[in-house]
Amino acid sequence: MDEQYMKLALDLARATVGQTSPNPAVGAVVLNHGEIVGVGAHLKAGEAHAEVHALQMAGDRAEGGTLYVTLEPCSHFGKTPPCADLIIKKKLKKVVIASSDPNPLVSGRGIAKMRQAGIIVETGLLKEEADQLNPFFFHYIKTGLPFVTLKIACSLDGKTATAAGESQWITSDGSRLDGYQLRKTHDAILVGIKTVLADDPNLTTHTDGGEGNPLRIVLDTHLRIPEDAQLITDQLAPTWIITGSKINADKKQRMQSRQVRIISMPSEQIMIKDVLRYLGEQKITALLVEGGATIHGSFLTASAYQQVITYLAPKLIGGRDATPAIGGQGIPKLADVEQMTLTHVERIEDDLKIILTPKRR
Amino acid sequence: MDEQYMKLALDLARATVGQTSPNPAVGAVVLNHGEIVGVGAHLKAGEAHAEVHALQMAGDRAEGGTLYVTLEPCSHFGKTPPCADLIIKKKLKKVVIASSDPNPLVSGRGIAKMRQAGIIVETGLLKEEADQLNPFFFHYIKTGLPFVTLKIACSLDGKTATAAGESQWITSDGSRLDGYQLRKTHDAILVGIKTVLADDPNLTTHTDGGEGNPLRIVLDTHLRIPEDAQLITDQLAPTWIITGSKINADKKQRMQSRQVRIISMPSEQIMIKDVLRYLGEQKITALLVEGGATIHGSFLTASAYQQVITYLAPKLIGGRDATPAIGGQGIPKLADVEQMTLTHVERIEDDLKIILTPKRR
Repeated sequence: MDEQYMKLALDLARATVGQTSPNPAVGAVVLNHGEIVGVGAHLKAGEAHAEVHALQMAGDRAEGGTLYVTLEPCSHFGKTPPCADLIIKKKLKKVVIASSDPNPLVSGRGIAKMRQAGIIVETGLLKEEADQLNPFFFHYIKTGLPFVTLKIACSLDGKTATAAGESQWITSDGSRLDGYQLRKTHDAILVGIKTVLADDPNLTTHTDGGEGNPLRIVLDTHLRIPEDAQLITDQLAPTWIITGSKINADKKQRMQSRQVRIISMPSEQIMIKDVLRYLGEQKITALLVEGGATIHGSFLTASAYQQVITYLAPKLIGGRDATPAIGGQGIPKLADVEQMTLTHVERIEDDLKIILTPKRR
Repeated sequence: MDEQYMKLALDLARATVGQTSPNPAVGAVVLNHGEIVGVGAHLKAGEAHAEVHALQMAGDRAEGGTLYVTLEPCSHFGKTPPCADLIIKKKLKKVVIASSDPNPLVSGRGIAKMRQAGIIVETGLLKEEADQLNPFFFHYIKTGLPFVTLKIACSLDGKTATAAGESQWITSDGSRLDGYQLRKTHDAILVGIKTVLADDPNLTTHTDGGEGNPLRIVLDTHLRIPEDAQLITDQLAPTWIITGSKINADKKQRMQSRQVRIISMPSEQIMIKDVLRYLGEQKITALLVEGGATIHGSFLTASAYQQVITYLAPKLIGGRDATPAIGGQGIPKLADVEQMTLTHVERIEDDLKIILTPKRR
């Protein structure tokens, strides 16, 4: 019984995944006398929470009813008033929650507040499904850092370019389209300066109207990016350039006047942990790292990733000097190589899409 | 009706795959008055063909019956007399054949001979299944060269060792066991001298009693193999060392006295096509190339492979200097990279087993 309404709330949440960042996707259902009297979902950061929509729809019929909600109602004033207060005011009899708030500082507060007001609160129904809905949000709330997805597109033998430097295209059209979809679900895409110099990419979702283009971030230690790079001139989405501490001040000033944000890190060499801390402070909850080899190598050795998505083309390129998917120093000892789980394997045209998740996270 | 008996013949053949080389696996069923009166399979090269076993079992009841056989009966004297003659002598009424002989020089001769004797001959029933049963044999008969399987075991990013040289073990126990099974189905295993110097492998199937250990072949241009290498001393299977034209004659003589075959190629550097031609002449129908990187690179650039079997571990090793699955020069132009089909994807414990088949073969 309960489960069927929570499933509906999860479906409502699932439908908005990707449009609520930095907030989580949340769904809510209000039931009274065995009938659904209200449904809601959180649509966009800054707007009403799922419970508010559902209670509004229910109106007077919320009184004495049951609220099913996929995430613990908030107890604090943010951009909107606390949902727990509204639930108390609307005199619900019972609240069923899938996941409690992942933020340890506030987790359980909304629940306690409602219980004090005499409302029956049950938690944990379909918790696993609810948690899986918002992995980015949960990671971000717990750590203050963005959830990092490493995206790799390479041949079966791990090459992203031939020894002669040819790289377009190794994977299929279908894999590239899937990669554009992946961009939509992240707040920001990160690439290294070598990728910009080699390919001059625009890093958009390639959809009509440019809807859903995420923020674009370039790691560019010495501010080498050409001033006529697409990322600087095309205005299709904001671009941030992250540099080391020693860069040309004139070029920095000139480029900032183009409404490009230049962020200089405190050290001469860019440290991945500094980058992630900065992005977390900027409310970037999900970062898609698209490479190239050096950038992937830096994130690998920093162990700074929560997910690896690989598109493998059924080809062998070979060559000791061909570009590997992951360069840099790599992990020298096998005992230090991260154990991961194959969480998803899918055919896309001739390619394989493989998702790995680190076991110890 | 016909199909059910041919399926039984195919099952009989399938059961002997891997034990008949250089001959194909073949099955036969004799039917008379709606009853099975004989069944047979070819068990081992040099022994009776499938039809002979089935007709022997049928005895007098073969007369007027129907023979179902997965491969065209032979018409020539080999190690055994022509099966077509026996079928005529036994006065069968009808013969149903799945595949005709792949050797263009003799294909159809057995059929013609039987038709001349007044037997009804039908061909092509379940031909595809029959052809798939013996890919090694079909390739070998058509080209005179062994069917080559490249076997790769690496991390998801295409590394077979870390930058510090650690390689044991990247893939799971299950993948290694599957790899031993793979050895059983090939006539010979080939590795490069660097693999011998680094790992001193025995290249056996690791089964009790050493049954089914294939021939072991080392490409060793300068005859650098240590005289105390396991491959030289363990007597678990024959070992052939293929060298370039310039090697130390004393060492060659010393090693040959240990019953190791040393084959010197005509050129200073070993050419893959010379190796394959030699192995074909020696009736090696199926060769498993296990690497390392340089050897795989040589077979790749020579386009000398009919199948690629990859065991991918869900790990990222990274590193520009870590050993790639395929080294050497590689394929410099993407347009020249061979198009392949993903013919098989399978989970083995945490790993993925992926089989690729070149499209143009």
